[in-house]
Amino acid sequence: MTMVVTPWEVRGEIDYDRLIREFGTKRITPELLERIKKHTGDLHFLLRRGIFFSHRDLDWILDEYEKGNKFYLYTGRGPSENVHIGHLVPWVLTKWLQDRFGAKLYFQMTDDEKYLFKRNLELEEANRLAYENALDVIALGFDPDKTFIFSDIDYAKTLYREAIKVAKRLTLSTAKAVFGFKNSNNVGEIFFTSMQAVPAFLESVKTGRNVPCLIPYAIDQDAHFRVARDILPKLGFYKPAAIHSKFVPGLLRGGKMSASDPRSAIFTVDDPETVRKKISAAFTGGRDTAEEQKKLGGRPEICSVFRYFEFFFEEDDRKLEEIFSECRSGSRICGDCKEELAKKVIGFLEDHQKKRERARDVLEKFIVRD
Amino acid sequence: MTMVVTPWEVRGEIDYDRLIREFGTKRITPELLERIKKHTGDLHFLLRRGIFFSHRDLDWILDEYEKGNKFYLYTGRGPSENVHIGHLVPWVLTKWLQDRFGAKLYFQMTDDEKYLFKRNLELEEANRLAYENALDVIALGFDPDKTFIFSDIDYAKTLYREAIKVAKRLTLSTAKAVFGFKNSNNVGEIFFTSMQAVPAFLESVKTGRNVPCLIPYAIDQDAHFRVARDILPKLGFYKPAAIHSKFVPGLLRGGKMSASDPRSAIFTVDDPETVRKKISAAFTGGRDTAEEQKKLGGRPEICSVFRYFEFFFEEDDRKLEEIFSECRSGSRICGDCKEELAKKVIGFLEDHQKKRERARDVLEKFIVRD
Repeated sequence: MTMVVTPWEVRGEIDYDRLIREFGTKRITPELLERIKKHTGDLHFLLRRGIFFSHRDLDWILDEYEKGNKFYLYTGRGPSENVHIGHLVPWVLTKWLQDRFGAKLYFQMTDDEKYLFKRNLELEEANRLAYENALDVIALGFDPDKTFIFSDIDYAKTLYREAIKVAKRLTLSTAKAVFGFKNSNNVGEIFFTSMQAVPAFLESVKTGRNVPCLIPYAIDQDAHFRVARDILPKLGFYKPAAIHSKFVPGLLRGGKMSASDPRSAIFTVDDPETVRKKISAAFTGGRDTAEEQKKLGGRPEICSVFRYFEFFFEEDDRKLEEIFSECRSGSRICGDCKEELAKKVIGFLEDHQKKRERARDVLEKFIVRD
Repeated sequence: MTMVVTPWEVRGEIDYDRLIREFGTKRITPELLERIKKHTGDLHFLLRRGIFFSHRDLDWILDEYEKGNKFYLYTGRGPSENVHIGHLVPWVLTKWLQDRFGAKLYFQMTDDEKYLFKRNLELEEANRLAYENALDVIALGFDPDKTFIFSDIDYAKTLYREAIKVAKRLTLSTAKAVFGFKNSNNVGEIFFTSMQAVPAFLESVKTGRNVPCLIPYAIDQDAHFRVARDILPKLGFYKPAAIHSKFVPGLLRGGKMSASDPRSAIFTVDDPETVRKKISAAFTGGRDTAEEQKKLGGRPEICSVFRYFEFFFEEDDRKLEEIFSECRSGSRICGDCKEELAKKVIGFLEDHQKKRERARDVLEKFIVRD
């Protein structure tokens, strides 16, 4: 199956080395990780495990940081439905970076994008979801004094003024080449990347001086930031730097966790029974029979349950290694393993859902709007 | 010379009958004028003289008005430089319609458009000109309680939210067909018509009920409103109605009054000396010598000085007719005629410039912004 990785579609077998080559990004090297560690004291497991695997100008961000020129962070979310675990992965690292580097964060809710790209999504619903999804962001523990969450629709006065500066420098020709737009695309879709570019220089606009920006995101969003990196210097701003995560695999065979098939994803609002059902139906690397599994061992490298431990639910590398080798050796049976994951997920969600509800009371502390 | 009439370019010999056919509009008939007069008591000279010559659904606007469903007005200005007399023509009729029908007016300053389309125009300058040009609008005497002037940039929160509803329903394919966009156009230019569509239904959004909208404009803007008329019903709004004016000819031979050649236009900020110079250099229908002119008579039908009387500076039809026949008969000499026009223009501008300066004090009464 052909690999397709665009901001709107991810399918096929993902070859991350090929993405690095094709998108022209750089691998995050052990040396770069050591350099981060010098400042942070430790390394987040998403960095240690190479789940954030690629970057642009991360070395430059550290150069500037070491010169006393602090960076700010920018990431976002397209609010078309509830948040699932896969969405949390880049945000978890973003929070860690905020904590360790004392960085401001602009968090963009692209309700305009989702409205424009999703045929049946109403504008009011996309806008409502922006604020519902913001609760999940806040629940992760971002600093209210340093975190600015906004809906594109409700921050449009600020954003549009800057977006047209980007738009003026982006030809239809380039937009087509980068995003593959056709004559059937609508004119809002074609304009939208200009809005997504704005938070990458908004702090510089607000402060009146050039502030480096680091954008953690899943690599499918890269097209937007290739455009931004091309245009921002023409406006007198730095190119935004980036670190790219892999996709969190879905619970079903192949593909990433996707909200379009609810069985493939665990949503932050799922109840324990739903979680149990989804995990018990998950695709694993197990053999056809328990006997065969004991003899041949499981295949954690293709197992969605193992990926969940790796990407989110087992922070301890030693324990993760144990799970891996137990599975390989045949001593770990899928049923037990699934039960172990389900317990972890349910425990996490119980806590997250409480924080998520409490976030309603402090939502306005995080939101900026015109 | 081929006739070209787009929102961004007007050139060649203008054939208004052909425009009616090609754009699919309707001629304003004597019957329709009589119907207007029933409500207004009189007819503005811009209507009497056929300077507003074409319409869409003006009969329907009157139907609704007669049923008690009042319309509102919408017109606008692309603020890329100072206002000239040609710009005032549609606004003068708009003011008359506001007075006679007690209609609200949305007046859009498309500073975003001008920034996007003019290579060397800075955003701050386009935005500044929006408010400078607003002074000319206010100087014409619009009702501060019924007139809402806004810069797209400063009203973008309100406008963008509605514009993306239009954009979602406008394909690149249609935008190319209507506006002739090429790969070299920027993505802001392609999106922009969505912003221009918004005031055509904004009153309905604000009031929560469907309000008919009548848009007086020079016919070069028609492409935008063909798009709006196609899309607004899909959003549950009425198609906007329109009345179209001819272009005010420039002072030079051929073409419309154009700010890109300052000699061709009289700006509202011009001083008396400048006005005299421009008018004395104006293209007329006069003959090579005074003797020849006395013998053969002048040609008012091709004379830019006569057009100025007709379009703006001689409201009295009888006097206009006198000028015409004096010219034809050879008894009116160009020098005198120019001096007569110059006096009228200087008198008008003296008064207008005073009102324009006084408008600074009441500007905020007219401006809406987010």
